Formats: sequence, structure tokens, C-alpha cells
Amino acid sequence: MSYDDSIYFSNPEDIDPKDNIIAKYIVESKLSLQKVGKIIAAEESIGTWAKLEHDIEFMREDLAGKAFEFSGTNSGMIAIAYPVDLFDIETGSIPNLLSIIAGNLFGLTELKKVRLVDVNFPEKYVRYFPGPKFGIEGIRKICGTQDSKRPHIGTIIKPKVGLNPKQTALIAYRAAKGGLDLIKDDETLTNQNFCPFEQRLTSVMEKLDTFKEESGKTVLYAVNISSDYDKLLDLADFAKDNGANCLMIDVLTCGFSAVKIIAEDESIKLPIHIHRTMHGAITRARSYGISMLVIAKLVRLVGGDQLHSGTGAGKMGDVDELPEIQEIYKFLRSDWYNLKKTFPVASGGIHPGIVQRNIELLGKDIVIQAGGGVHGHPDGTEAGARAMVQAVSATIQGIKLNDYAKTHKELKIAIDLWGELYKK
Amino acid sequence: MSYDDSIYFSNPEDIDPKDNIIAKYIVESKLSLQKVGKIIAAEESIGTWAKLEHDIEFMREDLAGKAFEFSGTNSGMIAIAYPVDLFDIETGSIPNLLSIIAGNLFGLTELKKVRLVDVNFPEKYVRYFPGPKFGIEGIRKICGTQDSKRPHIGTIIKPKVGLNPKQTALIAYRAAKGGLDLIKDDETLTNQNFCPFEQRLTSVMEKLDTFKEESGKTVLYAVNISSDYDKLLDLADFAKDNGANCLMIDVLTCGFSAVKIIAEDESIKLPIHIHRTMHGAITRARSYGISMLVIAKLVRLVGGDQLHSGTGAGKMGDVDELPEIQEIYKFLRSDWYNLKKTFPVASGGIHPGIVQRNIELLGKDIVIQAGGGVHGHPDGTEAGARAMVQAVSATIQGIKLNDYAKTHKELKIAIDLWGELYKK
Repeated sequence: MSYDDSIYFSNPEDIDPKDNIIAKYIVESKLSLQKVGKIIAAEESIGTWAKLEHDIEFMREDLAGKAFEFSGTNSGMIAIAYPVDLFDIETGSIPNLLSIIAGNLFGLTELKKVRLVDVNFPEKYVRYFPGPKFGIEGIRKICGTQDSKRPHIGTIIKPKVGLNPKQTALIAYRAAKGGLDLIKDDETLTNQNFCPFEQRLTSVMEKLDTFKEESGKTVLYAVNISSDYDKLLDLADFAKDNGANCLMIDVLTCGFSAVKIIAEDESIKLPIHIHRTMHGAITRARSYGISMLVIAKLVRLVGGDQLHSGTGAGKMGDVDELPEIQEIYKFLRSDWYNLKKTFPVASGGIHPGIVQRNIELLGKDIVIQAGGGVHGHPDGTEAGARAMVQAVSATIQGIKLNDYAKTHKELKIAIDLWGELYKK
Repeated sequence: MSYDDSIYFSNPEDIDPKDNIIAKYIVESKLSLQKVGKIIAAEESIGTWAKLEHDIEFMREDLAGKAFEFSGTNSGMIAIAYPVDLFDIETGSIPNLLSIIAGNLFGLTELKKVRLVDVNFPEKYVRYFPGPKFGIEGIRKICGTQDSKRPHIGTIIKPKVGLNPKQTALIAYRAAKGGLDLIKDDETLTNQNFCPFEQRLTSVMEKLDTFKEESGKTVLYAVNISSDYDKLLDLADFAKDNGANCLMIDVLTCGFSAVKIIAEDESIKLPIHIHRTMHGAITRARSYGISMLVIAKLVRLVGGDQLHSGTGAGKMGDVDELPEIQEIYKFLRSDWYNLKKTFPVASGGIHPGIVQRNIELLGKDIVIQAGGGVHGHPDGTEAGARAMVQAVSATIQGIKLNDYAKTHKELKIAIDLWGELYKK
């Protein structure tokens, strides 16, 4: 048995998507895309830079990664198929997955730039992951919106941090009274001294339980359990035993395993709201790092029920990455093996005046979330929440925001203050 | 009580490093550095984009981040001090830390580019982290090099993957016989079907125990436990109960908590070898992401005993980022509160001919590691290991490699094949 570079190439028609994890990279190099493809395929499977003396003795050619699609010459897209047997498949381990499809290749000196832009998995790999426990449908059932299919409306407690548990609960109650479906912690808040986790959870849930008695309506509170793994499990346990109805995890700082373990725990019957804080360190440089689409696929695999996925329009108008963001929304809501769907969350600089535009761009099956755009309303949090609800109602009914604002004062005040993005 | 933007600024002399975590960013923006500094300080502490109606009621001004150093106008460096009370301090939580110093700021539309380049911690924060259990001194004691202080020499098993446990053990034995101090798994290898963890560990340790009986020498085997948290803990338990003498973790794919939990577990008396696979997705775009220096500081906090920190010279000569890499090596070996020192590992494209240059650039207190540069030796792994040992010996004795090679045939063969970088 002997081998040469040809083991790292394949014709596209010979790649069986049932037996391979297929990753796509955008690269830039002095070398040809073919050479770059071979270098990545070798580095992330069975190769190294030197010819080995015991190659002939030991080499497992069937585990070789194979470059099979090239668009461009020195810069462009390469697709590489990694045989599933190369992976720690039965563990369903994202750390192992990333060490291969997103590992040392990022440091290769032969590449000037490289970005992982997409990944596709075969059923035999996906089956070892839990996927969302609730998904869009499960969350809609909890909140009673399975028939209307309207967007859910959420808020982040503001000020970002510094409130004590009683203050947090008071703001949450005001938001609930204003008509919101979801209230979440700030991504930086877990168990700080100024707002300890246990008191915060119990204070907020007490207020939301009161609200439920008054109104009959369930409002989710995504309490942030992001922490070291052992502590995170303790916080999840406390939460489930003390009336929590939703958990929140910062997936990139805690790790994908943190989400997976909570999703796999049958005793924890709570949806998981996923924040992506720190993603910009990985996703923002357009020619480096990893795309948000890849992160979204991993989040759905490990069981995120809701995921911050970007906005269609922000304070400054439609966002530059709109096509990529729309692709993420589409993926999260598409059929994908037997995994439930992840509810995409539009968040960041949202206010009532841009709700309509965001729904136009992203669809109705979203959670639309505003922090400053709720609590910064001149008449306070409850009025701010009401303005968001009015903006969603107008959109669902096909009424222009400015028209609807004529008869809805909270919306009018918000638009007068922050503007309306599309006065069509 | 009222506030304005001035709460997000400070004179440098008013920042007490004992009470703040100080982060430094390199940014590029259309706005002035002062405006950018205010935006980051607000976003990552108590602010949001909107003026809040209940500011006056609730705002905790003492928790405000403060921008206090600016070098440049629209692009340059900003230093921001975050009060320790802003953090989940007593948990020692890297997820919480990152959500603040490396969180949403990376996505701010007001910034064109932003990179976190450095961070400094006060003692009152560091005290909640374990640091390395062994450190450089502890590892030198295990290997008997505390007097000579020579570089440790390591290898990665090659082929990268595909060997079964018996084959892996055989290659490890050859490397040990050649005189190496450390043998490590590939970063992509954990518990795949082609090389199950338990058989691999027991096979390799059996061979290394035999070698110890023959030679009296302890050779470390860093067995890769990188996986989901629960599985990783199981693998660590199996390893400690079955004669392992070193563990390996891919810190960025598994999460910093994974290392911390192992380092804090008093029952696990094994050094932890840290691989940084995927770091290029975060560190490589020079104007985005997070610097390797920051990652190195976090690894030392959570207890990494050895850390892949880059090479001074690789296959293509001295590396571009040499000053930054030297700063990382300096930090890992410096006194830092009461934390033990982390052994920096030079790895990636190393072969005997560039050992001398790397030691010149990085010092003797390093682990120098070669994969292809050992196993690709024309006379095999044992000869390749011997050539690495000879290159280190020559350097320690102040003899030029080419001169030493005249009387050391394994080194001569390696240099004839791969060259010698500095024929001074």
C-alpha cells in the first residue's frame, strides 16, 4: 500500500453526503485552491507536513479528508468532505467537531485568509445530538401563540446591570403588564453580588406568577445560568426547583457542551434561550473566523430553543449582512432531520419604529426583542412594552405604523422620539 | 442623583488597579477614540443606547466601566477599567468575564474594527482561580530536569490520526527510546472508534512503564480528554485511575471551565497540557478578535500547566508575530500573584534544524515539540527523536548545529533533509 496527494481529492459525484461532514471555506492564498484544499484536508485528517517513515505501515487512507469543490483560483470557496469515522461520533462532541473542521487550519501559514462559512452533517452524525427540547412550537404552546403565529416580543432588563433582585422584578412586572412574552437577563449577568441569582429568580418569578394570576398569561423569564460548567448545573437545578420557566446560556463563552448537557437532561423541562455574546470576535472579520450560520447549526444541534441571530434592520437602517442573516433565519426554521426548530431572536438596537421593517425582512416566526427601545420610552417600561406590542399588531394587520400610531399613543410617542425607519 | 457621559471616563491616576479589571482594545472607527471608549464602557457595564426613564431611580454609577487611556484619534488603543464588582467575582467564571470584556462590543456598529489585546486583573479577582497545579517546576520535578533547566522535548503522535491503540503505543515507545520527555495526542483525537480512549491510554502507559523500568526515565503522555464536560470528566477519572501521568485539553473548543474544573479537582494529580486548536479563528485577523496574550492569561488563571504558545521560527523562518509571541512566553514564566508558572510549548512545523533558533528566540524554559519533524526522519521515529535531543544538546552546550551534526548522524540526516535555518 502506498499513497500520494491524490487521496486528498475526490470528484464531487463520489462524495456521499450520508458518510461525510462537509465543510465549506472561503480562502485566500498565493497557492492554487487545489493546493490549499489538499493542505487543509491533510492537516485536519491524517496528514502532516513531513513524509512519514511508517506511512506505509500504518496509514488509514479511508480517513482522509477530501477536497472536492473549488470556485476561484487563488481566492474563493473550497468544499472538503471529512469522513464521519474521523470524528468522535457517538459522543456527539462539538469540541471534537470543531477541532477538525475549525482547528489548526486557521493557523496555516500557507493561507493568507480563511473562513469557515458552512457545514453540513449526515443523519448518522446528527442522531447523537438532542436538538431543541421545545423548539418554536413548544414555546408557542407555553405562551399560547400557536394559533396566531405572531412574532413573540421580548425585552432585556435595563439598565444592563446594577439592579438588585427587587428592582429587576419590578421592571419585569412592568414589561409583562405592557404585554411582552419574554423577559431576559443581560448576557453579562449571572450571580453577581449586586443581584444574586437565587433572589433574582425568586423575585422575578413571584412577580410573573402574580401577573399570571391577574391576566392568565404566561410570560417567560430567561434567567441567565452562564457560568463554569459545575456552577451552571447548580444554577439550572436551583432554577428548575424554584419555578423558573426558561433558562438562558451564553453559548460561546460557556461552550456548546453546556447547552447540550442541559438539553439532554430530561429532568429539566425548560426552554433554553441562547445568547451569542463574543460572537463578533469570531464572526466579524469577513475573511477570517467562522460564520454565524455555522454557529447557528451547532446551536440547533446541541438544543438551543431560541437563538440571537441578528436583526434585519437596526438603528442605522438595513444591516449589511442581511442575506447571511436571512439564511440563518431560514435554516433555524427549516426541517432538519428530526430536530425541532429553533426560534430566531432579532435583538440589538430595536425600537417600535423598526419592528415592521424587521418583520418584513425576517418573517413572523421570530422573537423580536428590544431593551433600550422598551425601557427608554418616555412614559416608562410598561408604555414601552405596549408600543412594541402595538407595532407588532399593526404589522400583523397590515397597517402602516404611522397610521396605527394615530390611534395608539404609546407607539406615537416612541416614533416621535426614535423615528420610523420605513415611512412607505 | 443624575448622570451623564462623564461617568464613563476617568483620569488615569484615578483608576486603582486593585479594584478594576483593565482591558485594552485596538479600535478603528469614524468616531473619536473618546466616543468609542465611552460606547464600549457603557455597553459592557451599565449603559444602553437609549436614555432610560428609570435611570434616576436605579442607576448604579459605581459599576460604570471607565475609559481612561487613548492613543490615537480615530484608530488606536483604548484602555477601559471595569470595576470588579461588575463581575461574578467569587465564582471565578471565565464565561462571565468574557461576556463583559469580550462580549457585545465586538458587534458594535459604531466600530469598524476592534480587537481585545490585553487584560490585567487585580489580586482580589485572581484569588478565585486555581492556576496551574504543577507549573514549570512541578513538571520539571516529574521529569527530573529541575537542575539542568534544559528545554523539554516533545512529540505529537503521527500520522495525525488513524493509528489504533497498539500502533499508537508502539510509536510512543519509539519516541521515548529516542529520548523525548513528552508525547501527546493529536488535538483532534479523543475517543474515536479507530482508537478508543481507554485502550489507547492503557496501551501507551504500558509501553511507557516498560520504558521507565528499562531506563528509569519518566516520559509524560498527554492523553486528550477533550469532549463534552460530562464525558471529559469521565475520561479524566478513567485516566487517573489507570496510570495516566498527564492530561490534555483543547481549551478553546472545550471551554476554559473544562480546564478549571480539572485543575480544581484535588483528586486529579496530573499536569494539564493545553492545546489551542481553533485559536486562529479568534486571533488571526490582526484587527479583530482577541489576542493570544489574553488567551494565555486566561489559561494560566484556570490552571493550564503547559500551553501551545507559538514558535519563534517555523518552516518559513522567523514568524511575523515574534514580538507578541515573546511577550506571551515572558508572561507565562513571570511571577504573577501566587499562581504557578505555565510551561510554554513551541509547536508547529518544528524540526531539528530550527531547534537552535527557537531556543535563541524563546529561551530554555520551554517545551519544544515536533511531529512531522520527528516521525518523518528517514530512519524513523526513534532516530527522529534522537535528532531533536541532539539539536537541544548542541544548543545548551553552545555548539552550532552543523558542527554538532558532524559527530551525530541522526541530526546530520535531519539537517540534510530539512535544512538548518541559521547557518551563522
